Order: sequence, then structure tokens, then C-alpha cells
Amino acid sequence: MKVVALAGGVGGAKLADGIARILPPEDVTIIVNTGDDFEHLGLTICPDLDTVLYRLAGVANDETGWGRAGESWRTITEVAALGGPDWFRLGDLDLATHLMRTHMLREGESLTAVTHHLCQKLGIQVSVLPMSNQPAPTQIQSGDTVYPFQTWFVQEKWQPPITRVLLPEDVRATRSVIRAFETADLVLIAPSNPFVSIDPILNVYPIRALLMDLPQAVIAVSPIVGGQAVKGPAAKMMQELGLPHTSRAVAEYYDELIDGFVYDVQDAGSCDGLAVETRCLDTMMYTAEDRTRLAQEIIEFAEVLLKD
Amino acid sequence: MKVVALAGGVGGAKLADGIARILPPEDVTIIVNTGDDFEHLGLTICPDLDTVLYRLAGVANDETGWGRAGESWRTITEVAALGGPDWFRLGDLDLATHLMRTHMLREGESLTAVTHHLCQKLGIQVSVLPMSNQPAPTQIQSGDTVYPFQTWFVQEKWQPPITRVLLPEDVRATRSVIRAFETADLVLIAPSNPFVSIDPILNVYPIRALLMDLPQAVIAVSPIVGGQAVKGPAAKMMQELGLPHTSRAVAEYYDELIDGFVYDVQDAGSCDGLAVETRCLDTMMYTAEDRTRLAQEIIEFAEVLLKD
Repeated sequence: MKVVALAGGVGGAKLADGIARILPPEDVTIIVNTGDDFEHLGLTICPDLDTVLYRLAGVANDETGWGRAGESWRTITEVAALGGPDWFRLGDLDLATHLMRTHMLREGESLTAVTHHLCQKLGIQVSVLPMSNQPAPTQIQSGDTVYPFQTWFVQEKWQPPITRVLLPEDVRATRSVIRAFETADLVLIAPSNPFVSIDPILNVYPIRALLMDLPQAVIAVSPIVGGQAVKGPAAKMMQELGLPHTSRAVAEYYDELIDGFVYDVQDAGSCDGLAVETRCLDTMMYTAEDRTRLAQEIIEFAEVLLKD
Repeated sequence: MKVVALAGGVGGAKLADGIARILPPEDVTIIVNTGDDFEHLGLTICPDLDTVLYRLAGVANDETGWGRAGESWRTITEVAALGGPDWFRLGDLDLATHLMRTHMLREGESLTAVTHHLCQKLGIQVSVLPMSNQPAPTQIQSGDTVYPFQTWFVQEKWQPPITRVLLPEDVRATRSVIRAFETADLVLIAPSNPFVSIDPILNVYPIRALLMDLPQAVIAVSPIVGGQAVKGPAAKMMQELGLPHTSRAVAEYYDELIDGFVYDVQDAGSCDGLAVETRCLDTMMYTAEDRTRLAQEIIEFAEVLLKD
């Protein structure tokens, strides 16, 4: 079964890792949100791509969910001493990724080519693709203020209440992204934030249309467990956008886009009667074993959907 | 006595430090070569400025002459592991300077303003000025090949024989540089490489004309001791350019630009009969005491010149 997974940061990275552990690498493509990429201290930083890469490479920091294991903070501490911004915590190892990426982009390579290079160097065998080679910055509107995404997310600690998520127009998917969708049996929407991780990917032309039109199965995994986001602002954003902060509301938000929906055992029964097929599974991914088991159960679910 | 010192890297930084140790800070301006600045890994790197700043701040690496004391190499080691260039050794502490500088330049600050900010944060009280706010890249021609300066100097370890030094046209000094010259009693040409440290400064309009026209004393200190450069390629370049690699040839190279010339006791007698006033001094600066003593002796020499 050929699988394309749409991933944001931490949750997406974990499910991508589960999928990568059970399928042949040539059958797995992870398409990653780049809406939260930004330029900082002269460097091009792609937080979601890095979270996915580090997780797949087995060098992720398990405590924070982002960044690298065994990280140190010598440079950013000195940047702060020199009066520079240190709200975005750039570790010494992590910095090497940003320097390398910025170097290759300045030399004229595409973000897709840079990501492929990093995968090779990090020993990652599955395909990891940025959703686009074009900049596609997500912005957060809070009342009259419009924040660049990382300013709102990291610097403001996602506290300013959200009025609207602003996504750019005219962003196009790469050829390799389109080809991945065209050959996929299953498109998996990872348990990432629907508004700032998944919508930015769906907003890239023609990804939403491909998902609607192509015959593959589309399964989403809920990022909401017990009324809370496993990590990050998803539940808070749902409240501020006037939605119930439940798995059911996530399924209804994806609506006709999905054929199947996976939600957590803590919410058992809450998604009964939805128009899509559902599976109630243990979606918490603390360990590699959790990730493998959940991926396996989702593939089994997909096999049932594809037979219908 | 108001002193303006023209400085390249290591030797210039050491003499600048000596001057800074004996004169009131408001009387000292160091004008630094930026011809060897370059963009690398997305960062704007100013090697001579950094060497001067680190020396004046007391955080210089005494063993290498460049970079910071107590440096570590975690990020650049990881850059190399990711397949990136590591021929320019960026230490973890040093990187913070480049990140901060690049950040401020991207925000629209001038290199002069960035340098002033770094001086404040590093506790440097004398004025340190880049020769220009414009990029002014020095290039090295070797036969038919033209190298960006750092490629020749660091990556090629200054081995390709030099045919010509190529300096850019139409680079202009900043207002603060011109003002420093206009109020100086003494212009000191530090024991830096005449071709790739001092000439790039003199090439900035109207610095050479200011030195010729203004009534201040101009004293150069020879970077050649016993027929060798104290550090770097100065002697090798003199040979390749068809000049004797001697202090005397340095004095003749500066010619009418200078009123006084300081050369090392190892070359005693070698500069007799020159048209300029000379002083034969111990110019080796191993310690802070050496730097203070040499600076003091040069100031005494300048006082004699200014009385004439």
C-alpha cells in the first residue's frame, strides 16, 4: 500500500515515524507543512520539516517533541548576551540544519532538493517533501493584529486569541508532491493541528482538489483527545473559532475530504453516527512501539476502506 | 593625541589593543578592513572586524590569533556531517556574532551601527568603524583564476601564487570614518598586510586623499620581521609581486603616504637612509605588556614627528 501522510510538527512526525517503521520506504511519502517557515537571524528555518526529519532520523528530543536529542545552547545564549532575540530556541546541533539549508537555498537549490539532501545525510529512507518550494507563510489574525506564525506561536506562546488564520494565495505544489498523491492508495492526515498544520497543506494548489477527486482513501487522525490537544493550541483555537473542541468537531471540519476518521479511546462513542467510517483507537504515541501499533491499526483500517 | 588606526586582522587588532590601553577611549578610532567580508552559510561574516572586536573585548583566542577564547565547535562539526562546508571554522561562540550581525543587517541597520552595537555589548569603549557600509570585496587573481578573498585565504590556505589584488571601484567611506580622519593627530597604519588589509582601506574614497592632504602625522608599522610576515601571507605576496620581502620594501611601498615608519629590532639598520623618519623598535606583541609598550613608543615617536 502506497501511503502519503500530511504532517505538521510533533504529532505528524510521530505518526510518520510509525508508518515508516512498518512499510517499505519506497511506499511512504510524508508531505510536510511549510506554512510556519520563517527567516530568523538570517537563516531559513522550517520547524515542521525539522521536527519530521529529526523524528524519522531517530535524533529527536523526546522530552520537548521538537529539536534534537542531546542538544546544547551555547550559540543562542551568546546571541542573547549580544542583545539578540532568543525567543526561538536554536540549539547548537539544530543550528547546523538551518545553516546547511540556508547555504543550499542561497546556492539556488529548491527546498525539495535541500530536504532530500538532509534526508540522505540523516539516513532517512522514506520520501519527505515540503508541500511547496514557494514560501507560503501562515499568519494569525488576533483582533486587529496580524502575527507572522512563529511570532504568535513561539514568541507570544499562542496566547493572543485567534480571530482567523490567514493563508497565502497562489501557492503551488511541487511536481513530486502531485506525483505522490497520484500514486497513493492511502492519504493519511496526521494528528496535527487542522488549522495551522493541515489547512496550509490543503491550501496549496491543487492538493485539496486532488484529495477530493482521486480515488484513494483519505483517513484523518484526530489531534484532540479528551477535549484537549495532545500538544499545542488546537483545542484553544477550536474554542476561539466557535467550534466544540472535540474529535467529532475535527471530523466534521474535514467533512467530505475524508473517508475515514480515527479518534482516541478516551473519546469512545463520541463519533458515532458520523457520515465517515470511524475507528476508535489508542492514538497516544509515547514510544516507538505505540507509533508502530497505531500505524499498523490505521493501515488495517485503510485496507478495509479500500476493499469497499 | 587623537589617534586613528587602520587595521586588518591579527596584527592590527593587537596594536589597536595597545593603543586602547594607553589613550582615553574618546581619542581612539580603529578603522577596520572589510574587504575580506563574505557571505557564508547565509551569514554575513566580517573576519577582520571580529578579530579586532574580540581582541579589544579581551575575549580573543591567543593561540590562533582569530576567533574567541574557550571556543567550541559543535555546530560546524554537525554542518560537516550534513555535507556542508567547514573550511571556514565557525565556532559556537563566534557564530553568535555572525547571527547577530546578519540579523541587524537584515533589519536594515548599517554595518557601522551593527559594529557600534557589538562594541557596546562587548564592553569596548574605543570607536571601531568598518571602512565602509558598502560591500567592498577584495579578490585575488592567480594566473587566470580570480578567487573571492576568503576562498584564497582560508580554503586555499593562501597557496595559489598571487598575480594581482583586485579591489572594487566606487566604494565610499562613511561619514564617521571621514570625521575621524579630519580630527586625528596621528594616523597609524597597523602591522597588517599592506596589499589585502591596508590597501583595501586606502582604496575607499576618499581615504587615500585624506591621508595625503590632511596635516596629521601618518606612521606605518612594518608587518615584516626578519624577512618573514609575523602572521599570514605578506612576505609570500611581496615575493610574488616582485618586491623584496623586507621592512624597507614595505616603507617604500607606502612611500609618500607616510611620515614615519616603525620596523623591528631584528631588522636594525635595514631602513637607514629612507626619506621618512624611522624608529627601530621591538614590534613583536606576544603579551598585553608588549602591546602597551609598543603603543607607548609609537605615541612618543608621533609626538616627535608632530613637533617638527
